Amino acid sequence: MDLSFIGVVEILGTFSFAVAGAFAAMEKKLDPFGVLIIAFATAIGGGTIRDVLLGRFPVSWLTNAIVIGVIITGACAALFFSGLLRKFDRLLFYFDAMGLGLFTMMGIETAVGAGLGTGICIMLGTVTGCFGGVLRDVLLNNVPLIFQKEIYASASILGGIVFFLLNELLIAPDFAYLAGVLVVFVVRVLAVRFSWTLPRFYDRK
Amino acid sequence: MDLSFIGVVEILGTFSFAVAGAFAAMEKKLDPFGVLIIAFATAIGGGTIRDVLLGRFPVSWLTNAIVIGVIITGACAALFFSGLLRKFDRLLFYFDAMGLGLFTMMGIETAVGAGLGTGICIMLGTVTGCFGGVLRDVLLNNVPLIFQKEIYASASILGGIVFFLLNELLIAPDFAYLAGVLVVFVVRVLAVRFSWTLPRFYDRK
Amino acid sequence: MDLSFIGVVEILGTFSFAVAGAFAAMEKKLDPFGVLIIAFATAIGGGTIRDVLLGRFPVSWLTNAIVIGVIITGACAALFFSGLLRKFDRLLFYFDAMGLGLFTMMGIETAVGAGLGTGICIMLGTVTGCFGGVLRDVLLNNVPLIFQKEIYASASILGGIVFFLLNELLIAPDFAYLAGVLVVFVVRVLAVRFSWTLPRFYDRK
Repeated sequence: MDLSFIGVVEILGTFSFAVAGAFAAMEKKLDPFGVLIIAFATAIGGGTIRDVLLGRFPVSWLTNAIVIGVIITGACAALFFSGLLRKFDRLLFYFDAMGLGLFTMMGIETAVGAGLGTGICIMLGTVTGCFGGVLRDVLLNNVPLIFQKEIYASASILGGIVFFLLNELLIAPDFAYLAGVLVVFVVRVLAVRFSWTLPRFYDRK
Repeated sequence: MDLSFIGVVEILGTFSFAVAGAFAAMEKKLDPFGVLIIAFATAIGGGTIRDVLLGRFPVSWLTNAIVIGVIITGACAALFFSGLLRKFDRLLFYFDAMGLGLFTMMGIETAVGAGLGTGICIMLGTVTGCFGGVLRDVLLNNVPLIFQKEIYASASILGGIVFFLLNELLIAPDFAYLAGVLVVFVVRVLAVRFSWTLPRFYDRK
Repeated sequence: MDLSFIGVVEILGTFSFAVAGAFAAMEKKLDPFGVLIIAFATAIGGGTIRDVLLGRFPVSWLTNAIVIGVIITGACAALFFSGLLRKFDRLLFYFDAMGLGLFTMMGIETAVGAGLGTGICIMLGTVTGCFGGVLRDVLLNNVPLIFQKEIYASASILGGIVFFLLNELLIAPDFAYLAGVLVVFVVRVLAVRFSWTLPRFYDRK
């Protein structure tokens, strides 16, 4: 597994997160500056919250010119070529699902490096993958989507569990990492394909 | 004053904060994962904001397995046994008021340890006690409840003032601490019992 | 340029930010405590987010008694003398625009001191100047105003660009700093005077 594969996935994932954020902002009729901010919040929100909780400063994207460039590109693409981008919405969805998987694993890796327990690592992986979307929804004055429907965070959690199980089985870390990304991706794609949602036990009360 | 008393109050307070968060999330029809997240945000939000403002990393709950277990238990209890829990709502309210008192004092103690001035210490105590609820309301897309009605933050502030006054009088710190918790608890209980609210001077304009 | 000029602008800017926050909170019928919190969030939100992203702890206002006193004064003035304050709304607007300029430059200076790149410095300056208002709107359950209309963040960005251009030209740093403040101020005042808004390219889709 070479690094460049992960690098490409990170760029594609960041791009699709930024585009998703920009589209959500455009639906709320924000001005171009607002669209850019929401694209940023969506793309870097999860990693920023993780870094802040762990005390890693300055937060990682501040010194990552590539990520910043990709986000600006994504926001501009959404602003100027929304018609074109919407034709590729299925492709963007795949990028998004890959990004979710990769960011989850990056969050887990960071938390493992900080010496935290397995459960907390999975939680921080999920935060890294999902809380950009939460921040976007809070800024846009929506109830966060991932709290309501679709298997999103659950895919992250499942990927994290698989990663730790494979690690436990002494699988090579690189392989466990990629398997985790893959599990998140597949669960997310299947969930949307078959409209899976979590059961709401409490509806019956 | 032995430590175990404070330990028990912390667990009961955390539990009741988590349950209150979970119920608020269930009212908004969130899925079980969303309910869990809101329970977490309510229970650890105040302490997290305090730790971030002061620069204490990793934020305290990340390495506190008991707190995490209590929150998950509270969220699951709300999801699966809401009918049962609602029968004990008066008891939960008492736990909640005790938790508010304890978390306020814990926040003050942390701020004192960081060498901050008295006013700021009371403010950080109030943030520790109250801002979990603010975070819950922001995530659920409500105007924060504590900004609108009920004596909530005011109870925190009053408890903080009593704590510093007693300290000034050279009362034993442990006693001042517990007196602070008690003042918050009593003010909060009386406020709800007699529907106290803060006056709104500006309504007359 | 002596320090006292900057000190006066900081106090006036903080005051007007606090008043603006308090008025927004009063429109939402918050209680006096809520009004105070929103005044705080508006006045120190931007600097706090900057400090957290950069890892500067404790965040600056915690140890700045003057800023805290000015905010409390502003909130009380809004609560008790709103009729009087509203007569000076044009003056408050000028203070606000000056504050935006100064806070932007203070943010840039901090980011430069942290060794970050020019683009990120301008971004953090904008965050420092504008995100108090974003935090206020999030807490009050509004879509952030600066994402929707008026040239606000754009004025910050422009001021930041001018500051770096003048620095590049080997202009004395103090002069570049003040020129930056002035550009933000003038752009902001002209924007409100002539109702400038950013174009929304995507409305045509």
